[in-house]
Amino acid sequence: MPVRALWWESGKLAYIDQRLLPGRLRVVRTARVRDVAQAIRTLAVRGAPTIGVAAAFGMVLAKAEGGRSPDAAARLLASTRPTARDLFVGIEAVRRAWAAGEDALAAAEAYRERIVEECHAIGISGAPVFRGKPRVLTHCNAGALATVEWGTALAPLRVAKQRGGEPFVWVDETRPLLQGSRLTAWELGQEHIRHAVIADGAAGHFMKAGEVDSVIVGADRIARNGDFANKVGTYEKAVLANENHLPFYVAAPWSTFDISRPTGDSIPVEERDEEEVLELAGTRLAPRRSRARNPAFDVTPARYVTGFVTPEGILPPATLAKVLRGHRRPAMRG
Amino acid sequence: MPVRALWWESGKLAYIDQRLLPGRLRVVRTARVRDVAQAIRTLAVRGAPTIGVAAAFGMVLAKAEGGRSPDAAARLLASTRPTARDLFVGIEAVRRAWAAGEDALAAAEAYRERIVEECHAIGISGAPVFRGKPRVLTHCNAGALATVEWGTALAPLRVAKQRGGEPFVWVDETRPLLQGSRLTAWELGQEHIRHAVIADGAAGHFMKAGEVDSVIVGADRIARNGDFANKVGTYEKAVLANENHLPFYVAAPWSTFDISRPTGDSIPVEERDEEEVLELAGTRLAPRRSRARNPAFDVTPARYVTGFVTPEGILPPATLAKVLRGHRRPAMRG
Repeated sequence: MPVRALWWESGKLAYIDQRLLPGRLRVVRTARVRDVAQAIRTLAVRGAPTIGVAAAFGMVLAKAEGGRSPDAAARLLASTRPTARDLFVGIEAVRRAWAAGEDALAAAEAYRERIVEECHAIGISGAPVFRGKPRVLTHCNAGALATVEWGTALAPLRVAKQRGGEPFVWVDETRPLLQGSRLTAWELGQEHIRHAVIADGAAGHFMKAGEVDSVIVGADRIARNGDFANKVGTYEKAVLANENHLPFYVAAPWSTFDISRPTGDSIPVEERDEEEVLELAGTRLAPRRSRARNPAFDVTPARYVTGFVTPEGILPPATLAKVLRGHRRPAMRG
Repeated sequence: MPVRALWWESGKLAYIDQRLLPGRLRVVRTARVRDVAQAIRTLAVRGAPTIGVAAAFGMVLAKAEGGRSPDAAARLLASTRPTARDLFVGIEAVRRAWAAGEDALAAAEAYRERIVEECHAIGISGAPVFRGKPRVLTHCNAGALATVEWGTALAPLRVAKQRGGEPFVWVDETRPLLQGSRLTAWELGQEHIRHAVIADGAAGHFMKAGEVDSVIVGADRIARNGDFANKVGTYEKAVLANENHLPFYVAAPWSTFDISRPTGDSIPVEERDEEEVLELAGTRLAPRRSRARNPAFDVTPARYVTGFVTPEGILPPATLAKVLRGHRRPAMRG
């Protein structure tokens, strides 16, 4: 069974609590929009495309619960996290249908279908780059858990494997929340794709040693010029790939592209609780009186990107703005 | 009381078990060379200058225990870890005295004194660079714990603070063994130096945001041309500092310089057990069937180094070979 991050089930949203993986595979079912907001805020549900779909179904639950206007429900869900563009696109897709008296569930399901189809198309777009036995580095988790199905960064590797390729994946563990060692390694294991987990700081060593052929990551928000926000640490990998003359790819569905932002300078970067850095599974890592800083994302300038792997092919940053004009969709400003 | 990593006490080597910090400050005393070797191997005692001094005292213990030749004792201690140059220099300082029928303890104490004095001199050399309120990034631990007293990378910050400066330190947590969040943060706390722990992957974000003024690290072995080995992740910081036009300093006593190596290409890089990456404090971080790679060090090319902070001033890589010729000391090849 391929991994799915969430699905609709008898009037409820069912989702995998991603905080418990890989130790425990727990599915949560809820009919309350507040629970969906809390799941997004606490990263039980995470990954830009996945939280967009979760929020779309959250809007459906809000409508069924009653007591909130479409705008109020949208505000509740939009307040959960600031960086991922998809969150606001997913909310808006259902808000508009609800406000117009249309079928909200149909709108959410159409949005989910669109995301899943686009991720599959990303896999088909990107697979030819990963033929044979490529050694590919990725950061964070941009697999099915992050995107409902298929993944963004992992989709081309899955399609390449289905076509007989044998990709090997260097998995940055991705501190502080270890989405690499916990989630990406788990997904790759499910699909029998060879991989090795490494400390985030070891990626440069393996690049310099000639043991990495290319890098592919997902994104949380991509500006019109190709600057993009993704999990903190992504900027470091992009600079190191560039320094070592390795191709660096960013895979995303259209919902991640933010045509309203000319550059990455104005992308809001969420700073999360310092305890995520200072503690792990109840163990204190640093002295009691030490403080931490914990930006959840960083912004990588477009000049480090070889290509954006999109549902319609691999686009270099220079052609991005032109292509995006064909995908202008009204969306809630987020 | 300033922190000391180890000391000689009534015929025994006393050392802080650095694996237990910051939660527990445990001092271990031993009269057996095997225990010293094991402490170095397991990182209870770590940091290039500190393991050099620990091994010097280990030689003294081997002589007192009897049953081993100077060469056999040296081989036992030299087999513990491959990368740090200081280990072999410390062993050789005592092996030579022992083989010549001289006072082994006096040789070990002289070696320790030399390291401590050189680290203090490093502080004096480097302090002028860190005047005022500099925001300085460091990786791993190159403080007193790593060097017996004073530190290498941290020594200039300590001296700067004594002179009225107010340095702020960005502390890379330094996965997998967290020498940054556990040890550097603890030392800085002891000395009331302001600091914030960050995930290793966040350093680039803060550099790009203009929140870092310079980077300083220690080293485990420095080749004649200035290529150097240090804790894995150091290479990434060096590339990022260069990309962001920030000065990047490497602080080390003469025992870390390996005049026999023309470049860093032949420096042996220790690869440690994958469990250091896959588990933390008894918690499994990755799926049971996932594997990891765990190089303990990386090698940074000299071109990324602004200057080596030595006991005799700050030297750019270009002048290093010339200065090193004045410090040629016979040493065991390690």
